Amino acid sequence: MKTVITYGTFDLFHIGHVNLLKRAKSLGDRLIVAVSTDEFNQGKGKTTLVPYDHRVAILESCRYVDQVIPESDWAQKRTDIAKHNVDVFVIGDDWKGKFDELSDLCEVVYLERTTDISSTAMKQAILVFTQLQKDLL
Amino acid sequence: MKTVITYGTFDLFHIGHVNLLKRAKSLGDRLIVAVSTDEFNQGKGKTTLVPYDHRVAILESCRYVDQVIPESDWAQKRTDIAKHNVDVFVIGDDWKGKFDELSDLCEVVYLERTTDISSTAMKQAILVFTQLQKDLL
Repeated sequence: MKTVITYGTFDLFHIGHVNLLKRAKSLGDRLIVAVSTDEFNQGKGKTTLVPYDHRVAILESCRYVDQVIPESDWAQKRTDIAKHNVDVFVIGDDWKGKFDELSDLCEVVYLERTTDISSTAMKQAILVFTQLQKDLL
Repeated sequence: MKTVITYGTFDLFHIGHVNLLKRAKSLGDRLIVAVSTDEFNQGKGKTTLVPYDHRVAILESCRYVDQVIPESDWAQKRTDIAKHNVDVFVIGDDWKGKFDELSDLCEVVYLERTTDISSTAMKQAILVFTQLQKDLL
């Protein structure tokens, strides 16, 4: 049984998330997703549009995800990897090199992100879209 | 084998969609989701933020969904029900009474919508959210 773990916020669930989760799952037999809690995000000065419990429910409904756990601390990764017998740590390549220090515990894989899609891009697109609709009214 | 079908646009995948799909699937063994194409939406004067192929990929990644088909015509429901041997037609109760005419072909179920969440509400929330962030910059 090969266990894969990934970390993220997963605000505004989109095709980039689906692609990452599908590819992460394909690297093993079981995929754990650690989702940033609202409190953890606040500490980073980050606010999500979708609250934690909704983000968890959406991820739990994804066929590539076997387990969802909370991420509430930058330092929990080493503990998670040991506790869940993780073989592969996966994250988007916008973090390339940032988690190499975990490679004494497990394999570290940076996956290429889907071009032109992110939660931030989604929010910007929605802003433009909603304003355009207003202008048409 | 009991087959359930539902119809929708599924723009900006959210908790309301997950709840509906989960409950729809629980009414049978197999869930088919018919997703409005971009062309069909255009004909209704409706534009989505997420394009058709992304909406399909997100739905296909949902563990409650067994098959996704395109919805490109108001009149295709009777054909779909016959072709896919559908036993239950499910839709949100904002459509209550509107599809009773299908009850000669299969069971028609209107499911209660999740309170306070819809793609439209999401767009409005994002607009406010993005403007607030701008004001803080």
